[in-house]
Amino acid sequence: MRADGRAVDQLREVSITRGWSSHAEGSALIEFGNTRVLCTASFESDVPRWMRGQGTGWVTAEYAMLPRATNTRNSRESVKGKIGGRTHEISRLIGRSLRAVVDMKALGENMITLDCDVLQADGGTRTAAITGAFVALADAVEWARGERHIAKRAEVLTDSVAAVSVGVLPDGTAVLDLPYTEDSTAGTDMNVVVTGSGDFVEVQGTAEGTPFSRDQLNELLDLALTGTDQLAQIQRGALSS
Amino acid sequence: MRADGRAVDQLREVSITRGWSSHAEGSALIEFGNTRVLCTASFESDVPRWMRGQGTGWVTAEYAMLPRATNTRNSRESVKGKIGGRTHEISRLIGRSLRAVVDMKALGENMITLDCDVLQADGGTRTAAITGAFVALADAVEWARGERHIAKRAEVLTDSVAAVSVGVLPDGTAVLDLPYTEDSTAGTDMNVVVTGSGDFVEVQGTAEGTPFSRDQLNELLDLALTGTDQLAQIQRGALSS
Amino acid sequence: MRADGRAVDQLREVSITRGWSSHAEGSALIEFGNTRVLCTASFESDVPRWMRGQGTGWVTAEYAMLPRATNTRNSRESVKGKIGGRTHEISRLIGRSLRAVVDMKALGENMITLDCDVLQADGGTRTAAITGAFVALADAVEWARGERHIAKRAEVLTDSVAAVSVGVLPDGTAVLDLPYTEDSTAGTDMNVVVTGSGDFVEVQGTAEGTPFSRDQLNELLDLALTGTDQLAQIQRGALSS
Amino acid sequence: MRADGRAVDQLREVSITRGWSSHAEGSALIEFGNTRVLCTASFESDVPRWMRGQGTGWVTAEYAMLPRATNTRNSRESVKGKIGGRTHEISRLIGRSLRAVVDMKALGENMITLDCDVLQADGGTRTAAITGAFVALADAVEWARGERHIAKRAEVLTDSVAAVSVGVLPDGTAVLDLPYTEDSTAGTDMNVVVTGSGDFVEVQGTAEGTPFSRDQLNELLDLALTGTDQLAQIQRGALSS
Amino acid sequence: MRADGRAVDQLREVSITRGWSSHAEGSALIEFGNTRVLCTASFESDVPRWMRGQGTGWVTAEYAMLPRATNTRNSRESVKGKIGGRTHEISRLIGRSLRAVVDMKALGENMITLDCDVLQADGGTRTAAITGAFVALADAVEWARGERHIAKRAEVLTDSVAAVSVGVLPDGTAVLDLPYTEDSTAGTDMNVVVTGSGDFVEVQGTAEGTPFSRDQLNELLDLALTGTDQLAQIQRGALSS
Amino acid sequence: MRADGRAVDQLREVSITRGWSSHAEGSALIEFGNTRVLCTASFESDVPRWMRGQGTGWVTAEYAMLPRATNTRNSRESVKGKIGGRTHEISRLIGRSLRAVVDMKALGENMITLDCDVLQADGGTRTAAITGAFVALADAVEWARGERHIAKRAEVLTDSVAAVSVGVLPDGTAVLDLPYTEDSTAGTDMNVVVTGSGDFVEVQGTAEGTPFSRDQLNELLDLALTGTDQLAQIQRGALSS
Repeated sequence: MRADGRAVDQLREVSITRGWSSHAEGSALIEFGNTRVLCTASFESDVPRWMRGQGTGWVTAEYAMLPRATNTRNSRESVKGKIGGRTHEISRLIGRSLRAVVDMKALGENMITLDCDVLQADGGTRTAAITGAFVALADAVEWARGERHIAKRAEVLTDSVAAVSVGVLPDGTAVLDLPYTEDSTAGTDMNVVVTGSGDFVEVQGTAEGTPFSRDQLNELLDLALTGTDQLAQIQRGALSS
Repeated sequence: MRADGRAVDQLREVSITRGWSSHAEGSALIEFGNTRVLCTASFESDVPRWMRGQGTGWVTAEYAMLPRATNTRNSRESVKGKIGGRTHEISRLIGRSLRAVVDMKALGENMITLDCDVLQADGGTRTAAITGAFVALADAVEWARGERHIAKRAEVLTDSVAAVSVGVLPDGTAVLDLPYTEDSTAGTDMNVVVTGSGDFVEVQGTAEGTPFSRDQLNELLDLALTGTDQLAQIQRGALSS
Repeated sequence: MRADGRAVDQLREVSITRGWSSHAEGSALIEFGNTRVLCTASFESDVPRWMRGQGTGWVTAEYAMLPRATNTRNSRESVKGKIGGRTHEISRLIGRSLRAVVDMKALGENMITLDCDVLQADGGTRTAAITGAFVALADAVEWARGERHIAKRAEVLTDSVAAVSVGVLPDGTAVLDLPYTEDSTAGTDMNVVVTGSGDFVEVQGTAEGTPFSRDQLNELLDLALTGTDQLAQIQRGALSS
Repeated sequence: MRADGRAVDQLREVSITRGWSSHAEGSALIEFGNTRVLCTASFESDVPRWMRGQGTGWVTAEYAMLPRATNTRNSRESVKGKIGGRTHEISRLIGRSLRAVVDMKALGENMITLDCDVLQADGGTRTAAITGAFVALADAVEWARGERHIAKRAEVLTDSVAAVSVGVLPDGTAVLDLPYTEDSTAGTDMNVVVTGSGDFVEVQGTAEGTPFSRDQLNELLDLALTGTDQLAQIQRGALSS
Repeated sequence: MRADGRAVDQLREVSITRGWSSHAEGSALIEFGNTRVLCTASFESDVPRWMRGQGTGWVTAEYAMLPRATNTRNSRESVKGKIGGRTHEISRLIGRSLRAVVDMKALGENMITLDCDVLQADGGTRTAAITGAFVALADAVEWARGERHIAKRAEVLTDSVAAVSVGVLPDGTAVLDLPYTEDSTAGTDMNVVVTGSGDFVEVQGTAEGTPFSRDQLNELLDLALTGTDQLAQIQRGALSS
Repeated sequence: MRADGRAVDQLREVSITRGWSSHAEGSALIEFGNTRVLCTASFESDVPRWMRGQGTGWVTAEYAMLPRATNTRNSRESVKGKIGGRTHEISRLIGRSLRAVVDMKALGENMITLDCDVLQADGGTRTAAITGAFVALADAVEWARGERHIAKRAEVLTDSVAAVSVGVLPDGTAVLDLPYTEDSTAGTDMNVVVTGSGDFVEVQGTAEGTPFSRDQLNELLDLALTGTDQLAQIQRGALSS
């Protein structure tokens, strides 16, 4: 039993509020327990100059945290005048993860920017961001289809994509979807990004303390796939409502 | 009659959700129609080095907008690597406005930082931010009192403070609380910050087009005071619930 | 009687030296007592790319202080690598104030940049900058007319504009044109920008300490209009010499 | 057979030149084929202020590329004024990888900074950097022991650590240690950091194109372990010479 | 005969206005023809942290140009967010030149910062800056002596220092003190910094076009010494008035 | 006799390894004793936008040091977010020195960027960089001729160029080619850039302590010419091998 009463292979309560923003072409407020991330998708019917004329589009992402999303206040990166390594790394991960399920030819010379702003953080913000951003992306693609920026039958999204964290607690137990209290003490921490059909887009495992064995790696991957399978269903539910 | 059906001296629907953030010492999600600002107050029982030993505290504020808070996406200031003039100006205005109702001696050597992040913008974001930040500030002061960082009977807040925008539409009508569509065409634009007892903390009037006469100035001030009086009541209501 | 012997409604000695710079299309060294600001107007027969083809021009301003313009040395903003909030705010105020008296259609696709560099500061630098910048602007417009960048009869300037500070001293006296010693102790501080015909372009009043009443606001506005009326005459004198 | 004639599970020629720098406390020029990385370890008998008094040390890393390490010249990050996301990400990876084999208590209040500068790039620069940095680190630890900054018998290094890249070529073949030509077309790309005793420190797999299945993941991990096992031997050889 | 009627070995009209700034501990507005540089010396009775406890002082300099000091407007370095190479280079040259005539032991643990701001540029701004800064420095030293920050008889200044430019015109003529029109076409350009007793502090000669021979170098040095000799007299005159 | 056993007019051992980089169009690893600088020349068949259409090319240079090129580690300029004054100054010096021997018309609308990265520093890094960069430049010009970016018979290089440092030791001895230990104590320090035919491109002499006399200046120039004459031979040797 975990501190919050969950089983080792149980997700926190996940909720997705579509259309939270009235301005964005697609948006979703996603919550994994106390973690809340606002994901917006901004559609632009153009691509960066260096990509023009190739007939393909682009999808990019930016991740950020409000200064008081965490337990103690962090300085704003705009005030510091530069973006930290962690922010860069997560922004790049989100962008790569979503591009893995987008057919850039079908998207055409259009660009979609996903902004994932953490309003409240309690572990798993990057995986919540990927999971919510997919919903915002799907809505932006539909919006663009309605506006005829994208062909009526273009299969822009080749699959869905969701992500979850898994880790090893100090007592050696492998667990799914870690809140901050578990995450901060976990020996091994892994983020896994998986498509709706169960293939891997990204596997990032890090030994914070003791290196981990191949058996532990396999146990963690099993747990992760359990989680992403449920998240894919929740995404489908949200998008069909 | 205005485009959204309001009378010239009528506020948009205003709602204040206290305690929206589970981490901050005080927080409020304030909505003026479609404008939504998340205000958090972070309490620190210390002051910047240059203020130590004087027995007085400090209150400061930072204002920012999410990139897709507006109708078209704006680049993040963290990505641009510097904060724009407008952001600086509004952050300074919010800080000054709140300090006007804080007794720094009663606050003691403590610091409160107000973060006002615009989640969705539809005109009047800076005035909504001031109005919401006061609520977050009041809660942070009470929290600090409970934690004994502030003396039990210290009168830290000398009054309440709220703000509203007023402006002159192209047809010459003076109106209260302008949404974006009105604000973007208004000839004169004024932000007025007023205490609960009806005195001015800040008056900022700007002629965007034709300069304005003293009579127009007086008409705008009358309207503004109507608005801030109602906002003070809404604040009291939120804080007493 | 004030510390420097002036009456409450008396300006400091104001002098304007036109053509101080031999390179700029218009220039004025303006002095309000010990405050000295060098204002230059740079004319460019082009506009920023995003404005091209609309047939209208632009006027912008940049304000800065030499590091030892003040009593103790300030670090250069170029060395710090970023411009402070106060500098941004004043630059924006100067630009808005001057644009209020420029007919952008009559200016045509031309751009005028006003640089206001404070060589020595003793209170009221932003209001001196606006007052001096108008003179530099007027000369640059005449220069451009002579060079045929502007049509012979185009009424580019619709009025003159000048600015002055007013404030309330600790003993409650409202005074005009505050030097540093008064400004640093004033309870309420107001900068008022007024056209030659007496209408307001900008009213910025701030309670540094106790909030101010509507009566005090009116008293300050009366004083300010006395000052800007005299400044408009001094500008006319300088431009006709 | 691969373009350069290697078997799928064969490393490029790897060479390690210890002591390449006459100034650093430890240094190694490591070559994986045409990839050349200069790794230096700088020892400082102090830790950052916030770590003092805890009796533990710190190991950190910075990765960079010379502008013409690559086929076309890249702008210097110092000239651009900020560090890119990729650089940050790799620097953080190298630091984490080395810290996984350091006992911070045994290191005491000392800090070692590893600089990994890519002099010439041909794929696998981050994995070469980790592998070379371990050798530089080991020499710096021995230097510090000789200088009595570290206790004579302190077991600072708990294991060795090495890294290698693996990937899936467009024809589906999984290969070890990809040069640039393979890397730029690979569908899946994985960097694996492994201790001398064969446990994982970091697994980072990314689908650049088609997502990968669990079987492919296992095949890649098998290949990687073959490579890191050989690299651990090469490190031992270098350190014992 | 030169374009402005001067002989090849003749300086432009040089004037030095001491005490131009009422705030600085020493100040001089120096003019070499149309070149005008405001030099202020700011005295601080402290040194940077890393110099404390050694009993010696420091002298440093910062050079800058107002945006419209030149014929066409230059962007402000504060707006660009970084200082250009030329500015850095000249600031460093001024600092070195003045330190060459300061006995740091006699100065004690005090620091003097020289700000040289070019108000109007017409060639030779760096040499005018050095020559004027010496006067401001001398006044700041006397001020500090009066305030007892420096011992009554301490010989802080070991000599005077002045600087001048020399160059070779396209027709091969070597000339002294080049205004902008000559400077911009000169083949070789040299700045020479010389003490009051005629020794060299700095010699910086650059072939802009054809490399120069040793004979030309000697001819230029002869001219330069003529100029700095006169400048030393002008400095003495200014300081004794 | 000097600390390292050399005569006062003797260079350290100089070696030039051409083609050290397999990517650059020209490259040389130059060593002056323990000073090692990697010089690469990057050719681009284009010029910056503002130079297009004039039929002339451009040559520019960037100098940098690896963080542990020196005895104690220096922070990276990319991490600090700005380039220091010394780096700017040396980059500009290298660029000017090489441009002095390039016929920009003959180069045509092409650009060559020289990167001089100090891998290990022991005095004289800027002069080694100039000397090595000339070799890289010569190879890049030949490469471009082979690729027909430059006309077959165009005389792009009008001469060779090399540089050396000279200085005065504390005992008054003038010496050639100072390593760090001599350089850090030298009273006068001079860098001299000379063409293959013996004319000066740049003379930069600085009194670090006592100002120097004209006789000393002449003695130093004699020594420098001895050194650059030998360096020109070494360059010819390298380029003909």
